[in-house]
Amino acid sequence: MMKRKLYDLAAADISLRFSPYCWRTKLALAHKNLAYDTVPWRFIEKPEIQFSGQDKVPVLVDGKTVIHDSQAIAEYLETTYPNEASLFGDPAAKAMMVFVKNWTELTLHPTIAKVVLPDIFALLDPKDQPYFRKTREAFQGMTIEAIAARRPEYLAILQATLAPLRATLKGQPFLAGDIPNYADHIAYGALRWATMTSSTPLLAPDDPITVWMQAILDTYGL
Amino acid sequence: MMKRKLYDLAAADISLRFSPYCWRTKLALAHKNLAYDTVPWRFIEKPEIQFSGQDKVPVLVDGKTVIHDSQAIAEYLETTYPNEASLFGDPAAKAMMVFVKNWTELTLHPTIAKVVLPDIFALLDPKDQPYFRKTREAFQGMTIEAIAARRPEYLAILQATLAPLRATLKGQPFLAGDIPNYADHIAYGALRWATMTSSTPLLAPDDPITVWMQAILDTYGL
Repeated sequence: MMKRKLYDLAAADISLRFSPYCWRTKLALAHKNLAYDTVPWRFIEKPEIQFSGQDKVPVLVDGKTVIHDSQAIAEYLETTYPNEASLFGDPAAKAMMVFVKNWTELTLHPTIAKVVLPDIFALLDPKDQPYFRKTREAFQGMTIEAIAARRPEYLAILQATLAPLRATLKGQPFLAGDIPNYADHIAYGALRWATMTSSTPLLAPDDPITVWMQAILDTYGL
Repeated sequence: MMKRKLYDLAAADISLRFSPYCWRTKLALAHKNLAYDTVPWRFIEKPEIQFSGQDKVPVLVDGKTVIHDSQAIAEYLETTYPNEASLFGDPAAKAMMVFVKNWTELTLHPTIAKVVLPDIFALLDPKDQPYFRKTREAFQGMTIEAIAARRPEYLAILQATLAPLRATLKGQPFLAGDIPNYADHIAYGALRWATMTSSTPLLAPDDPITVWMQAILDTYGL
């Protein structure tokens, strides 16, 4: 049997895997005790994942199943491997995961993006840089250099945005309580993306968010 | 047996009960099918609740039990009335409620406050106004009039802040899924406080947040 394959966004340094959505999937696979190999992938390598019917990662190949979109992958894993620990918990917990997802994508991600986009640009494979500049500048309505110039302001907004996550993790080990679930994976993806690409440290070593990030890795032996 | 009593913050119009924390408690009592009478209370009536050992509402009197702080009251109701529907759900759902609580208190409440503080000031009983002006201006570091002058800016921030709540409620009836739980009560309290005091409409009638607020009241026959 072929091993599972996960197409995973990489920087110029092929070991630097920074996509927040790919991190969700890597943690979900670990949560389900599923082995996989990653295939490093760059933004412009769209032909490489054409078999998935679209052009974004993560893409998971599990035997004969090809599946894309981190949320669809999580749902697929939950359904396909029901005997492993649940990713979502009971219906109320799963419903509240949706709020964590929307907060992460609509509030946290845009805030992180403004801080790290210039850093990511510098870390990318040169062949990815023109694509990244064009798409991100169009989305942000600013040049990468203009974003970089406002870094102090964006850093302050990021710290304010993190307040509810930090306060929660000060009082309990994980968003989902004593053990992490997919809500933790979602928020972790955002913070991993931020901290691994930022040119300056974003979190103190004793920040509850730092402690939680390490505890997630420890949970899965990563 | 004496009926339960809830001390509930009131405006000059004694029927205008606007405290977000008192709303949490009123919904939690409804969720547990518990009858109660409210005692209207104003900010400066601190001697009236001195028996609770502190000076803030909500204060619940349930038989011989006196309990304050909305979260402590919710925990008390969950423990004391276990045969009614759970306020929190399973441990993962309860843990994620804490994130909703922290988001509501650390992100949403401060945003709402800047929009409605001047409106609330105008609605208060005159005897409450000096207390309210003094405490709120100290906290905000601005006069009420200066806050009012920046209303358009604060309204825009509020709409951006509501994005994750709105997106979630576009896809499911309640934060907790098909039936509301205490996470919904917490967020509802904030939105009820905002919408019932704002001098201008904050939400369109077909906004998913408006629909959700009505669905919560309908759930409990309120």
